[in-house]
Amino acid sequence: MFISFEGVDGCGKSTQARLLAEALRAEGRDVVLTREPGGSPGAEEIRRLLVEGAGERWSAETECLLFTAARRDHLERTIRPALDAGKTVITDRFADSTRVYQGATRGELRGFVDRMHDLAIGVEPDLTFVIDLDPETALGRGNARGGAEDRFESLGLDFQQRLAQGFRALAREFPNRVRLIDGSGSESDVAARIRAAL
Amino acid sequence: MFISFEGVDGCGKSTQARLLAEALRAEGRDVVLTREPGGSPGAEEIRRLLVEGAGERWSAETECLLFTAARRDHLERTIRPALDAGKTVITDRFADSTRVYQGATRGELRGFVDRMHDLAIGVEPDLTFVIDLDPETALGRGNARGGAEDRFESLGLDFQQRLAQGFRALAREFPNRVRLIDGSGSESDVAARIRAAL
Repeated sequence: MFISFEGVDGCGKSTQARLLAEALRAEGRDVVLTREPGGSPGAEEIRRLLVEGAGERWSAETECLLFTAARRDHLERTIRPALDAGKTVITDRFADSTRVYQGATRGELRGFVDRMHDLAIGVEPDLTFVIDLDPETALGRGNARGGAEDRFESLGLDFQQRLAQGFRALAREFPNRVRLIDGSGSESDVAARIRAAL
Repeated sequence: MFISFEGVDGCGKSTQARLLAEALRAEGRDVVLTREPGGSPGAEEIRRLLVEGAGERWSAETECLLFTAARRDHLERTIRPALDAGKTVITDRFADSTRVYQGATRGELRGFVDRMHDLAIGVEPDLTFVIDLDPETALGRGNARGGAEDRFESLGLDFQQRLAQGFRALAREFPNRVRLIDGSGSESDVAARIRAAL
């Protein structure tokens, strides 16, 4: 089974991905916990081109090509081999992040992102949890973590509001695959909601 | 005017690109001489991911995505602004290199390469010079130069023979744009053939 976690910066998706991996391992499953951009040695190198440097370093189209290159490597070297070996794969972000981020940057990019995905990736998770949290709360959590490498977290509240809307729209667009999870309350409250949905 | 030089490693295309740039500048034209992979600060960083490390570091598809990301940046930041300013752009390699190299690696990749190009680049040079030289001679020249960073030059004679066939096929496929130039003889012999064709 291939599961992804998505949501605005600071919503708690990395924590929830880890908690779910730990819970499934405690039940005896073989779980690979991974993340994007990155998740394989080559993709981690591409990640450095994406998260370091100025925000205007790449155009949105070049950024999408680099995300897709990293995703293809992640898929080939980490995700596919694990699934073929019967393992459960849990990833912190996948293609939905590119859809929502690029769409929030320039709405007309969605077609470009989708055609690129169809051509070079062509795979969706079996199940996607979107952790839905008020962006103001989420942004506070994200900034509190102080991940200096993640320039996305410095994009501001207005952008995060557009992202939150984009993730909610995704849940409506792919109702069979995407589950919206209330991200308020404690970590264990949210984890319990995810287990119930699973 | 947008001119590209293509051909097998060691065929003399970099030298001929430089000689043509110098000749056109001597006539008073404003010429930007550039190269791929690279040609803009971002694309040069992506180049390092492509030319350093082991040959099996990336799959052919991931490699194509990275080449296309570098080309998009090169186009946006170097080629397009120069053309818009009325300058002549001469590039040592462009999309034809990806077509021919990936095709020589795995023939069925050509469709992937073409769809990626149509989606993310969509531009061809006005004129392409393919320097046609016997790969055994060309490989000798390339090795003599000792460019340690260019792992493509270490791929061997059989691969270079497939590349030479691929470049000749390109001239048949795009007869209006691609000119096959005899690469034998001295640098000035070849330069004279290029000026005559131009």
